[in-house]
Amino acid sequence: MSYRAPIKDMLFVMQQLAGLDNVIRLPGYADATAATVQSVLEEAGKLCGEIWAPLNAVGDRQPAQWRDGRVSASPGFEQAFRHFVDGGWQGVAHPSEYGGQGLPKLVGAACIEMQCAANLSLATCPSLTDGAIEALLMAGSDAQKRRYLPRLVSGEWSGTMNLTEPQAGSDLGLLRTRAERQHDGSYRVFGTKIFISWGEHEMSRNIVHLVLARTPDAPAGVKGISLFLVPKYLVDEDGHAGERNDVNCVSIEHKMGLTGSPTAVLQYGDRGGAIGELIGEENRGLEYMFVMMVAARFAVGTQGIAIAERAYQKARSYAKERVQSRPVDGSAQQSVTIINHPDVRRMLGTMRALTEASRALAYVAAAHSDHAQRHPDAQARAMHHGLYEFMVPIVKGWSTEMSVDVASLGVQIHGGMGFIEETGAAQFYRDARILPIYEGTTAIQSNDLIGRKTVRDGGAVAKSLIGEIGEVVQALEASPAFADNAAFKAMHRHLAAGNQSFANAVAFMLEHAGKDPNAAYAGGVAYLKLAGIVLGGWQMARALLASQRLMREDPLFHGAKIATAHCYANYVLPQAAAFEAAIVGAQGGEGVLGLHEDAF
Amino acid sequence: MSYRAPIKDMLFVMQQLAGLDNVIRLPGYADATAATVQSVLEEAGKLCGEIWAPLNAVGDRQPAQWRDGRVSASPGFEQAFRHFVDGGWQGVAHPSEYGGQGLPKLVGAACIEMQCAANLSLATCPSLTDGAIEALLMAGSDAQKRRYLPRLVSGEWSGTMNLTEPQAGSDLGLLRTRAERQHDGSYRVFGTKIFISWGEHEMSRNIVHLVLARTPDAPAGVKGISLFLVPKYLVDEDGHAGERNDVNCVSIEHKMGLTGSPTAVLQYGDRGGAIGELIGEENRGLEYMFVMMVAARFAVGTQGIAIAERAYQKARSYAKERVQSRPVDGSAQQSVTIINHPDVRRMLGTMRALTEASRALAYVAAAHSDHAQRHPDAQARAMHHGLYEFMVPIVKGWSTEMSVDVASLGVQIHGGMGFIEETGAAQFYRDARILPIYEGTTAIQSNDLIGRKTVRDGGAVAKSLIGEIGEVVQALEASPAFADNAAFKAMHRHLAAGNQSFANAVAFMLEHAGKDPNAAYAGGVAYLKLAGIVLGGWQMARALLASQRLMREDPLFHGAKIATAHCYANYVLPQAAAFEAAIVGAQGGEGVLGLHEDAF
Repeated sequence: MSYRAPIKDMLFVMQQLAGLDNVIRLPGYADATAATVQSVLEEAGKLCGEIWAPLNAVGDRQPAQWRDGRVSASPGFEQAFRHFVDGGWQGVAHPSEYGGQGLPKLVGAACIEMQCAANLSLATCPSLTDGAIEALLMAGSDAQKRRYLPRLVSGEWSGTMNLTEPQAGSDLGLLRTRAERQHDGSYRVFGTKIFISWGEHEMSRNIVHLVLARTPDAPAGVKGISLFLVPKYLVDEDGHAGERNDVNCVSIEHKMGLTGSPTAVLQYGDRGGAIGELIGEENRGLEYMFVMMVAARFAVGTQGIAIAERAYQKARSYAKERVQSRPVDGSAQQSVTIINHPDVRRMLGTMRALTEASRALAYVAAAHSDHAQRHPDAQARAMHHGLYEFMVPIVKGWSTEMSVDVASLGVQIHGGMGFIEETGAAQFYRDARILPIYEGTTAIQSNDLIGRKTVRDGGAVAKSLIGEIGEVVQALEASPAFADNAAFKAMHRHLAAGNQSFANAVAFMLEHAGKDPNAAYAGGVAYLKLAGIVLGGWQMARALLASQRLMREDPLFHGAKIATAHCYANYVLPQAAAFEAAIVGAQGGEGVLGLHEDAF
Repeated sequence: MSYRAPIKDMLFVMQQLAGLDNVIRLPGYADATAATVQSVLEEAGKLCGEIWAPLNAVGDRQPAQWRDGRVSASPGFEQAFRHFVDGGWQGVAHPSEYGGQGLPKLVGAACIEMQCAANLSLATCPSLTDGAIEALLMAGSDAQKRRYLPRLVSGEWSGTMNLTEPQAGSDLGLLRTRAERQHDGSYRVFGTKIFISWGEHEMSRNIVHLVLARTPDAPAGVKGISLFLVPKYLVDEDGHAGERNDVNCVSIEHKMGLTGSPTAVLQYGDRGGAIGELIGEENRGLEYMFVMMVAARFAVGTQGIAIAERAYQKARSYAKERVQSRPVDGSAQQSVTIINHPDVRRMLGTMRALTEASRALAYVAAAHSDHAQRHPDAQARAMHHGLYEFMVPIVKGWSTEMSVDVASLGVQIHGGMGFIEETGAAQFYRDARILPIYEGTTAIQSNDLIGRKTVRDGGAVAKSLIGEIGEVVQALEASPAFADNAAFKAMHRHLAAGNQSFANAVAFMLEHAGKDPNAAYAGGVAYLKLAGIVLGGWQMARALLASQRLMREDPLFHGAKIATAHCYANYVLPQAAAFEAAIVGAQGGEGVLGLHEDAF
């Protein structure tokens, strides 16, 4: 099997770090017992490992094809997607009142990770449907919900998000697509949208496009953007799809990776206007989109974790098979499998440590989201909401940047074979590269982390995290294992130092973001990565404590967890100081910032 | 122009850091005046910018094609290569007695950088010819030199290196290709070689394959490897090519990048044996190959610098054109070109700092090679030889690892457009990925750096470098600029700390490589990167001192050099401590190394 869902690792994180027991006790999750969760993961793992994963390379080698406005998916994709829909997987974490299974986000996140690891190109399709569902749940009218949600939640129809235009990428204020109100209350939409993932395909019977556009009298800039629903086939009152709407796919992009996922250029209104309906109120589109984007950004972070896991599994298999060179310690007189060479170990250990740390942080964030939604106490909900919001740009930015590095290490472990496309390692390296870009680049995430998440509340959430990490540092020191366990010592030392670097960076941002924004934002990506490394280290330290406690139950499994935490402490956490230097020491990179444009 | 050779930067490095004046005063370089060097670079820059560079994307989109054993190069390549041959560029740094221009390696390195930046796929062809020339110069008989060198040095014929076999990559001891001695003193060669760059093509009239193989009675392992010359067309006593030899290209690889360079599988001896001649003595093949490999590894390091420079130029152009979002400091009410955003500045500054530092280190190494070859004093030659040998694995390993990171930043600066193949940024990211692998992976380079270059002489060369760097640290502090120049302060602080980390790592290697090789080699890649960062920082500090001195002559140019050094100090040098932690702190990564294979 080319991908085996790491269910045991996932359950370890869910139970030991993300508090699965507390999540399933939240109101509304009565059906989600620990046993249910495990069997959901196992079923998801089967679908992903057996049906989706073998098609991953197929999608890469036989990309989606555009012809005369129609897009045919890669061979096998439609059938694999059918299995997904028939299994009810689209609705795992959506409300049961619209036909979903109503499971916690924590469980949904693990399922999405598996889908993305198995076949990232295919998995982006239902992920965008999730976005459309979120938007309708948040801002749709009751009638809209009734008409669209059941078929979206079942997976019968898919969804898209239409933000980007050629001149408007990160800068949505520049968008020009216009929507004209008709006498019947509907709108006619005109314009060109680019980079629309799964913007056209025939795997589902209808596609529900969510489109940002301006009404003629809207204010300029981001305050004049509204959100419209434009279906590929018009939908009647009873939710049946009929006539083709005036939205057309004029081409798909030729991309470096993720080629199984068609990226469409959509043309609205060439034949009189695409018929759309307003979602929520006029001029509040960006506000709705931001709420949706939180979920979408979290999902893209999960994609990074997924691709890192898959790259790790591939490199691990190769390292256990490929025989090359004698061991440096002279312990064998013949060539050995390369997993026995120290640098291959170091690379595999680093890949695994980064993957596990980012998974742990993402799942912990998902649990906070579940508590933020369902906790009976309003103050607790607010607290969890704040933590989730703080973590999302980190999950998005850090996990995806990490995935590029991990996929690159995966290629390196394969040596020359890694560069040959048939091997498959290169695909992960190519696919991963979009992740730190789409749904907001890492710089956009770091702007969010600084502005909305750190500075706006005066650093309250950041400081609460620093406090929690400090408690884990103390717990390491207080553990009976501390005296003679090198992993504990290394983690204690580097997590304490990392937490101090994080605290210094938070203080720097609080001081400078207002009065010297260039200085703050020049260090933004470093701040995001520093936060990721330290928050990931916090989770690895908690995993270390848990595995030490559970060691006797499963020495091989927990021994590996301890070694992986040790590896994280030595190879990843020490980078925190370098990022601190790039923020606090660099004082906003005065060197490059001060330079005249012509000097570049 | 899609690539403009950075001649002014190159000359700055050659003159201010690599001691061009001293190099051209060495015996035998009488013709190489500073004016000659400049005009050579300008001519090379023209060829590369005007003829080679526009074909770079062509090679990517229309790769070399194999058909019935014949390989046709990408459109335009043959003509572009003809310009190169006609201009005498193959012979720039080769001896005039065989028709070369006999210029220093320092000048040759700059020309090679330009060729690789302009069109890496095409440039690898003459680079392999350089390898064949080096091998013949070192170990060929007079008759062989007479027969082969003039046509190789002129570029009329090209060369290849045949090392790898499916089961023998880094581990050449496993190779099986055999060579049987005939009564006439020639050999018949039988076997399969893979990963042979430009192993078959029709741009040159003949291809001179240098092939590692075993004679039937050779000792096992690496001590039984001999080096053979196997021409595609047999060559008579007068050096004329005639009948086709029994070597055939059975396929070329489908690679992630560098697709304009055909990577051949060569089959020797299917029709009775390929006729070859022994180079040097039997069973000394690996020894010769190692000497050649030093030059080849240096050249691959240059490829890394080249691709980083090209990726930087592309990203810079985009950043100056693309308009998106208002400045974070509120200095404009409209969207601005993205070069005005602090994170884009940080990325461009980092790309440039890494590129300039690795170029400076490579050129300084090249100058040491020139002194090692030509200095009249034997002791001075030995000293320069030791420094060059120490630097080569760093130039190879660090510059190529750096190039992957820089190309990745280049994609990031382009945002979503970076992922679209038509943009061109993705090609650099794909192409660069082979560089840390071929000619010896980064781990192989680090093994060399530890074993042969650091430990064998008891750390003598390493310690001499630590001393030299210490002197530059003092010079920074002693400079009148130190008091009020933030770049000086940052560089002083981080270079001093980096040098201490480097010294600690050297001490660790000297102590552990013998008694606990796993502990040493687990930290090998970290050691190589640490050495690269600190040696690169040393050169950036010297550049800083020089530009401060020369400031008035050209404020824009030298101001940019100072800002770039400042950027390097803040964004790159602080990583040294993290690498030290991964070596000294990790104590050989005991966490992952101790883990049982089954736990992965």
